[in-house]
Amino acid sequence: MSVLIKNVSIVTMTEPELVYGYVLIKDGMFHTVNSGEPTDELISEVGRIVNGQGKWLLPGLINTHGHKGMALLRGHSDDLPLHRWLEEKMWPFEAKQDRQAVRAGRDMAMAEMILSGTTTFLEMYHLFMDDFAERIEEVGMRASLMRSMIGLCPKSEQEAKLDEAKLFAKQWHKKASGRIQTMLAPHAPYTCPPDFIERIVEEARHMSIPVHMHLAETQFEVNKHQEQYGIHPFDHLEEMGLLSNVHWLFAHGVYLEDTHLDRMKEYDLAVSYNPVSNLKLGSGVARVDEMLRKGLTVGIGTDSVASNNTLDLFEELRMGALIQKGQSHDPTTLQARDALKMGTVNGAKALQFENLGKIEKGYEADFVLVAPNEVHLQPKEHIISHLVYATKGTDVTDVYVKGKPLLENRELLTLDKERIVFEANEEYQRILQK
Amino acid sequence: MSVLIKNVSIVTMTEPELVYGYVLIKDGMFHTVNSGEPTDELISEVGRIVNGQGKWLLPGLINTHGHKGMALLRGHSDDLPLHRWLEEKMWPFEAKQDRQAVRAGRDMAMAEMILSGTTTFLEMYHLFMDDFAERIEEVGMRASLMRSMIGLCPKSEQEAKLDEAKLFAKQWHKKASGRIQTMLAPHAPYTCPPDFIERIVEEARHMSIPVHMHLAETQFEVNKHQEQYGIHPFDHLEEMGLLSNVHWLFAHGVYLEDTHLDRMKEYDLAVSYNPVSNLKLGSGVARVDEMLRKGLTVGIGTDSVASNNTLDLFEELRMGALIQKGQSHDPTTLQARDALKMGTVNGAKALQFENLGKIEKGYEADFVLVAPNEVHLQPKEHIISHLVYATKGTDVTDVYVKGKPLLENRELLTLDKERIVFEANEEYQRILQK
Ligand SMILES: [Zn+2]
Ligand SMILES: [Zn+2]
Repeated sequence: MSVLIKNVSIVTMTEPELVYGYVLIKDGMFHTVNSGEPTDELISEVGRIVNGQGKWLLPGLINTHGHKGMALLRGHSDDLPLHRWLEEKMWPFEAKQDRQAVRAGRDMAMAEMILSGTTTFLEMYHLFMDDFAERIEEVGMRASLMRSMIGLCPKSEQEAKLDEAKLFAKQWHKKASGRIQTMLAPHAPYTCPPDFIERIVEEARHMSIPVHMHLAETQFEVNKHQEQYGIHPFDHLEEMGLLSNVHWLFAHGVYLEDTHLDRMKEYDLAVSYNPVSNLKLGSGVARVDEMLRKGLTVGIGTDSVASNNTLDLFEELRMGALIQKGQSHDPTTLQARDALKMGTVNGAKALQFENLGKIEKGYEADFVLVAPNEVHLQPKEHIISHLVYATKGTDVTDVYVKGKPLLENRELLTLDKERIVFEANEEYQRILQK
Repeated sequence: MSVLIKNVSIVTMTEPELVYGYVLIKDGMFHTVNSGEPTDELISEVGRIVNGQGKWLLPGLINTHGHKGMALLRGHSDDLPLHRWLEEKMWPFEAKQDRQAVRAGRDMAMAEMILSGTTTFLEMYHLFMDDFAERIEEVGMRASLMRSMIGLCPKSEQEAKLDEAKLFAKQWHKKASGRIQTMLAPHAPYTCPPDFIERIVEEARHMSIPVHMHLAETQFEVNKHQEQYGIHPFDHLEEMGLLSNVHWLFAHGVYLEDTHLDRMKEYDLAVSYNPVSNLKLGSGVARVDEMLRKGLTVGIGTDSVASNNTLDLFEELRMGALIQKGQSHDPTTLQARDALKMGTVNGAKALQFENLGKIEKGYEADFVLVAPNEVHLQPKEHIISHLVYATKGTDVTDVYVKGKPLLENRELLTLDKERIVFEANEEYQRILQK
């Protein structure tokens, strides 16, 4: 069915930057993006017409790193040193989680993402990935999914995990009308021996899918790698020849040197910038300003709500831009426009989705409407500035993925909010008392 | 009239930290704060009963630094170097503002503050302060007001400004049933010659009111002061004997040394921490973690929406806590509980309001209700964590100042939201085209 959305300020993420007019969607793609009013002829042909009433229409936001399987852990523990947080709080709870609990958390996470304007996300987790893929297919979001692997185990177990990850990746790649893609994901250099990472990269090359991994999140982990192998983990990957002939997306990348950034550009690697999680866990601030200046592809990510504690990408973009300015003592760093790119078109590239992240003919019709009606968005004419520096997730009124509405006037169409709120609390308590 | 609010989780900011029960308000003060259900006898005596339906009741948030008179400048300019931002964008617009424009901006700012749970704020501005005080009296907020003075002018002009500031301070101190207090405010050491600051401090001592000033916001301004006077601006104030026998509240304090912090504690000075503005203008990060460890009074502030670009203190507290953890590489720094103190009881102390910032018998009944109904606040039991790390201003449903409701179920009772939105845009365009 074709849908026409008129009377909107379109934030295109291409040239021209802003268009006041309408978009026509056919078969889940943008067919026309035009200024002014649609013709009567066009209106008579269209299946459905939405009056945008002066709202802002922009590409759906893209979350390039996270673990939705941990969603029930929001607020479970904060303000602890990392090892105590993991060992005393996160791991014991995660070990008790079953399919039902993980599903409740993920439904909550999807609802939260849709309600704050996110249409595409990455999930790196080890539990119940098939179940999640099925739910995503039903709910209608777009996602890059992977069965995360920790390699601190015998070879046979490593291979079993890899088999599971490969099977999942094969089964779901480009499924759900192309809304689901997959990757292979060694968890991190500090949890995967080099030869296991090598095995995984070989398989990813063979399957022509990307590799996702945590990299250089903390100084501690980089120091430990240096001690153990005498080399920085990035250099180690390069020395082993693992960086070419495959698309890499690294999460974090807080502790990287100038020369790493140059070589990352050569390999056309992508980085997921997770400013809130990196701050909250005391890890530090990634050198995103320099990464962008070197032309690297940087997307934005929230990590899990256990270390964030929200999935609102408007907040993440704002915080991500502000901290770069503060860190560099330069207010011209990471401007609003570039932050928006990070959350849209660069996120799409990082996840290797084609024709995603712009409002342009031939692009996937994944978009959101933001109502500039609230007091905190006045005066309302500064659209690009407000989207980064003033908009709240709650200003999003409508969300579409592949031309299909998932949120209308803040009503979830494919998820049951009341049930989600109820079950998130029920399941959290059930696992807690297990 | 007495008001009883029952069935709420009370975040007391004293011991015990959380009470599930009810509060009774008489004559604008908390009369009873109790766990459990109110007795039938009590209910029969009360003028009005509100069922809190499991909401969180906490002290209204306190914004210790800002310039609401600049509110129309939200999004007017971002991402520019400070001097170009001021000279090309801020000052030319401000110079054209008239009473009507400033009032429209301030009405918008008050609406935004109330809608995001702020009950008390500081206003440091040079224009139409009487007009604002009258509006605040009508609207019902609590405020510390001051006619800001820039001293880069002949002595006669300095004295005229000081006369105006004194007159305003005298006329409005402890007025509006005590909701309004005043201070004297030299703008900053780089805009006020030392002898003018001295004059102002003398008058403040004489009038027994506090002094508020921007201090050490940027490295540039501190360096310039060192060049001109051979001394750090804080040391300069101390050397001149201006720090004792008066209550000081400094805004920013980004560039302070260890010894300054120690001496600030001795003088029992207060600091307004403005993390977002300091990041956005590329100024840096104040050493709040160390200030708190030394026992200094630190409140939270937004500065103006020209450099923020919101007045949502929930965002400011979250960002303020996160950046301290990231900066110190220590996730245990500035914990949720301490951030909340900054936004409530310490803010009250910084502004020298008595019996404010706690939910306790004998305290001012300034408080807000937060509904933990949205997806992003689940599981809902982690109240203290969620208030800092997950709550949005839009989760606030009700706001009371001195026992009087200003917001009920997100409806403004003393301000007209539609008119404010309309006028903010009208006035912005009018001034722009002047
Ligand atoms: Zn992660
Ligand atoms: Zn200021």
